[in-house]
Amino acid sequence: MTHTSPVDSYHVINLAQKFGLFSEQWKPKVVAQMNDYQFKIARLEGDFIWHTHFDTDEAFLVLEGELRIDFRDGSVLLRQGELYVVPKGVEHKPYAAREVKLMLIEPHGTLNTGEQTGERTAQNDLWI
Amino acid sequence: MTHTSPVDSYHVINLAQKFGLFSEQWKPKVVAQMNDYQFKIARLEGDFIWHTHFDTDEAFLVLEGELRIDFRDGSVLLRQGELYVVPKGVEHKPYAAREVKLMLIEPHGTLNTGEQTGERTAQNDLWI
Repeated sequence: MTHTSPVDSYHVINLAQKFGLFSEQWKPKVVAQMNDYQFKIARLEGDFIWHTHFDTDEAFLVLEGELRIDFRDGSVLLRQGELYVVPKGVEHKPYAAREVKLMLIEPHGTLNTGEQTGERTAQNDLWI
Repeated sequence: MTHTSPVDSYHVINLAQKFGLFSEQWKPKVVAQMNDYQFKIARLEGDFIWHTHFDTDEAFLVLEGELRIDFRDGSVLLRQGELYVVPKGVEHKPYAAREVKLMLIEPHGTLNTGEQTGERTAQNDLWI
């Protein structure tokens, strides 16, 4: 069986090191890709906008701090080491009282604001 | 916009709590699903077998301990908070000198032994 990957792909992603490379909030950065899915890290603080991803689920893993995700009829609170998958089509709004560091896992091309593109829409596919 | 998800889906996954539910090694457990991808947690210790996933990349995130992934021409060492994506078609062999706790992210249906099915092949799609 031949090895098809170049040696320079043997590169481990250290999430803490990646967080050290930026301080801006609400601007997810891609750190890895698996098939057509991307791993993104972000710093969030304060309130976001209500939005929906009509064509995909979206996974949140909290690495440091606390994240609340509001729904129209409830909410979830995620602490460090906690994972939540927002189902496709479910309107939601992230909120963090203090800065939270998290990882998002979602298909390439997913916008942070879903269908609600506007001033809170971050540049997509930005690697760090 | 209507909310399409039942309230009982507002269930956060605490990874430490999930690890408390099992102690066996080399038996990945599904904790969440995003579209057709699954989040699996596992305890690994010792040596695994060489295998390849011909149809998918495979992501490893180390939650506690250290994981080495050997390739035919190199290796990577992942510590806590480190992520690595084994590219599709690349033969690899996980190894841990002491028990490591990790999360795998891969498509539903991915077997732990890839094409090398046999005694080390774990039951698939086992939720915890």
